[in-house]
Amino acid sequence: MEGLMMTPQLRLPPFLERAERYFGDREVVTRLAGSIRRSSWREVGRRARRLASALDGLGLAPFDRVGVLAWNTHRYVELYFAVPGAQRVLHTLNLRLHADQLAWVAAHADDRVIFVDEALLPLLEAVAPKLPRVQAYVVLGDGPAPKTSLSPVLDYEQLVERGDPDFRFADGPETEAALLCYTSGTTGHPKGVLYSHRSLVHASLMMTTVDGFGIGERDTILVAVPLFHAAGWCMPYVGAAVGAKLVLPGPNLQPADVLGAIDAERVTFSAGVPTVWNGVAALAESTGRTLAPLERVICAGSAVPAALIGRYERLGVTVRQAWGMTEAPLGTMSCLKQTTRAETPSERHAVLARQGLPIPTSEVRIVDADGRVLPNDGKSAGELEIRGVNVARAYFGDERGDETLHDGWFPTGDVATIDAEGYLVIRDRTKDVIKSGGEWISSLELESLLASHPKVAEAAVIARPDEKWVERPLACVVARDGQSVSAEELRSFLAPKVARWWTPETYAFVAEIPKTSVGKFDKKRLRERLQRGELTIVRAEE
Amino acid sequence: MEGLMMTPQLRLPPFLERAERYFGDREVVTRLAGSIRRSSWREVGRRARRLASALDGLGLAPFDRVGVLAWNTHRYVELYFAVPGAQRVLHTLNLRLHADQLAWVAAHADDRVIFVDEALLPLLEAVAPKLPRVQAYVVLGDGPAPKTSLSPVLDYEQLVERGDPDFRFADGPETEAALLCYTSGTTGHPKGVLYSHRSLVHASLMMTTVDGFGIGERDTILVAVPLFHAAGWCMPYVGAAVGAKLVLPGPNLQPADVLGAIDAERVTFSAGVPTVWNGVAALAESTGRTLAPLERVICAGSAVPAALIGRYERLGVTVRQAWGMTEAPLGTMSCLKQTTRAETPSERHAVLARQGLPIPTSEVRIVDADGRVLPNDGKSAGELEIRGVNVARAYFGDERGDETLHDGWFPTGDVATIDAEGYLVIRDRTKDVIKSGGEWISSLELESLLASHPKVAEAAVIARPDEKWVERPLACVVARDGQSVSAEELRSFLAPKVARWWTPETYAFVAEIPKTSVGKFDKKRLRERLQRGELTIVRAEE
Repeated sequence: MEGLMMTPQLRLPPFLERAERYFGDREVVTRLAGSIRRSSWREVGRRARRLASALDGLGLAPFDRVGVLAWNTHRYVELYFAVPGAQRVLHTLNLRLHADQLAWVAAHADDRVIFVDEALLPLLEAVAPKLPRVQAYVVLGDGPAPKTSLSPVLDYEQLVERGDPDFRFADGPETEAALLCYTSGTTGHPKGVLYSHRSLVHASLMMTTVDGFGIGERDTILVAVPLFHAAGWCMPYVGAAVGAKLVLPGPNLQPADVLGAIDAERVTFSAGVPTVWNGVAALAESTGRTLAPLERVICAGSAVPAALIGRYERLGVTVRQAWGMTEAPLGTMSCLKQTTRAETPSERHAVLARQGLPIPTSEVRIVDADGRVLPNDGKSAGELEIRGVNVARAYFGDERGDETLHDGWFPTGDVATIDAEGYLVIRDRTKDVIKSGGEWISSLELESLLASHPKVAEAAVIARPDEKWVERPLACVVARDGQSVSAEELRSFLAPKVARWWTPETYAFVAEIPKTSVGKFDKKRLRERLQRGELTIVRAEE
Repeated sequence: MEGLMMTPQLRLPPFLERAERYFGDREVVTRLAGSIRRSSWREVGRRARRLASALDGLGLAPFDRVGVLAWNTHRYVELYFAVPGAQRVLHTLNLRLHADQLAWVAAHADDRVIFVDEALLPLLEAVAPKLPRVQAYVVLGDGPAPKTSLSPVLDYEQLVERGDPDFRFADGPETEAALLCYTSGTTGHPKGVLYSHRSLVHASLMMTTVDGFGIGERDTILVAVPLFHAAGWCMPYVGAAVGAKLVLPGPNLQPADVLGAIDAERVTFSAGVPTVWNGVAALAESTGRTLAPLERVICAGSAVPAALIGRYERLGVTVRQAWGMTEAPLGTMSCLKQTTRAETPSERHAVLARQGLPIPTSEVRIVDADGRVLPNDGKSAGELEIRGVNVARAYFGDERGDETLHDGWFPTGDVATIDAEGYLVIRDRTKDVIKSGGEWISSLELESLLASHPKVAEAAVIARPDEKWVERPLACVVARDGQSVSAEELRSFLAPKVARWWTPETYAFVAEIPKTSVGKFDKKRLRERLQRGELTIVRAEE
């Protein structure tokens, strides 16, 4: 028996319509190096509508992919609504990809039009010859059209100008495709995650919950996460849904820009990767500047150290951690339950440094190598699997996804434990885990400990082949500027903190850890260097 | 093109499973006059599962209706999950109905089993002979089975005891029926609203949002709204979804009980009708008792006076207003936008006394008598229409609903204005509005003003036939204990506050205003008394 309630389809454009209607005056601000552009939800709505109508004129069929290669600006926010609102798929291109990867991704997505920031023209020009299927390039910029080898080339502002302000956003089922985002692809080729309206609406609503991101109308959101990362953690959609003020920071966000934006725009909320927030804390501490009126920061993308949570607490800001991935933009949230004992600040921060509990519309579990579900005892470590309303079931171009899911669950490639209270802790990536004498060693945990050494800037731990133990950990360490540190020092530092057989005997002192396009340690490249004998290995004396 | 995301069906049991798994120790407390019963989400889960399995044994077919006639207790919370979890429909019977209405509603719903509080047996026994289709009655109580004429009769605790603790809640489409609730039916017969899992999940999630009810894990919720009102405003579902502590106040909730529960159980949040909260404020003020740790109260069910918001502000508690109805449990929320000017406390309270803005998954509009959409100018008054994910499209027994909707929108029977900023203000019920000389007069606004007179306990305003003006307002007034007030006093009190032609010339001083089963003014009965000449009408001297 069916319930007798309406079943409106949950699509993204109604969020924008709500913002236009009830929060039209609320600002959407783009802060570039030389200029500040003040728009509003009313204007974003009007322009997104015009732009959506103009897409019809570009010869695009329904659901054709529209690529965007851009920094965070109001124009990117407009595209977030205009493209799915015109029943096309917005493909957010990662501007940190190498030219080859970019070409591969744009071709795999079969982008038919690409919108590009003026500043990123050289990158795209290098790639364009490999993209014969692209019918038009649209340049995002304020001034007159720049010289470019791209062809045919159009001007974004002219396209908007020509559009129909009375365009009505497309209706359709909530399960329709809206946005395409590729994984960073540290193993093999990147994979495309095709978000539906339904999944993005749900992820957005979760971010407005008290125990989620807690975003409401009174917030001013600094969008510190790139809009090309995992649907920009839905920030444009959330902002519109609740009528919050949005601050888009443009290119190359630096700690000083963050502090400047917080102060000038009265930012209350932000979200981004821990690296950014490390830098911001360091600058605030060293200059004695306040972070007010900033209240809350959500960190995700890599593990958030307890120390960072404590630093921000002293700066008057609550840091909470979200765990997610391109295939599941919001999976779990860190939290401190009323029933969890944590008396001292450091006990509290340690609990909050865990990845926490799944959101109400997701479920998580851990499984062993044979796919058997492991107990939640805080000790058994296995691959984390997730299912829920904002989780991928297949990849673009491989719609059947026969190999994507395990028994209806998405295998994340993360190794995790879950304790009796349900707290999830990510221990490692399955491919980075070190298997030593039949037991596993968490590279992530060793890295986190090494990074807390005062003379260490950063550290990555990879497996080194070992005759007796099969694998042993090798710590690749970057010393802080002007410092030097020995293998013995690090070994003695770690010894009292981890199991004896976890402690690495071998160290490689390097100038920097290679990074992926999204700023994560690129251990694949480290392993290649190890294999080619390019790392100088130092053994710590006992 | 379909998105490639999972589409798990949004059903209610996963909320309970989440509570069991992550918040098993969190309490679900029933406070009766003589005893306090401390349960937990773990226990509610275990018992709901056993109960669900036992329903199969009662010979119920899928989607058969299971009636409940009960006060708010942990057992009612168990039924909220067990019945829809066993793929039956929970029918929440209003215990304030007259026996005739109760019989009509239970027969119309075709209840096959009825769960009944021991204390409410006499009411049900009077009705049972008219319910030949009921196969079993189940008595909710702690002691040995009481003597009753109901037959066959079962004991709730025995039923639970016999059930299977490993029962798995039913799967199925999210649009399936879960809960049936009848309107209070001030005009004609009550009508049944058949909620789907999807609609209740969405309404619940809205209540966890910052700009909704703002309920999170750290809250202790006093469930002051009866669970038989509009799905109990989803309180059991919300509580489970976030793992909040629930406090169920049992029968006949009085202001002293509310204060006692807040203090003893450390209540942080509650929701209920303004009448309850009026009484609580009065008691706190007169006894000098604090309301701590109460932080937030949501009022709904009738308009919340600005004065009440101010009183609670002085008591350290934020009162926010929600507007909804059985057919749309959560429609709008009062709010004060960042862009709205309101400098003084009284200006702020006046804005918060408006019904506010639709939640992100609802839309509202106002239409004139011909169904034309009216402008949002704050002046044009018309019937409020709503559509959204938690809005009814038809009534039980009239599934086609050809006459229920207007152009896809649900006509609420409320007269409202919407201003340029989007703020909704309910002015009256369409059937209570007074049409005088071609213009409308809001009975609600006159009542609210009259109630603010120091000598007035309560007042209801109805239309009186008038030869010249067609209708004129008649104010039916109850004086405060030991006070007397004259028609002239009231007229002079109103004169400077409303338009000249709104001011009633005629008054009827009565001992009490008749009320409906949900405590609203029963103007139908007042109008009948007027028609039968039973009201003594006093004309104010000019």
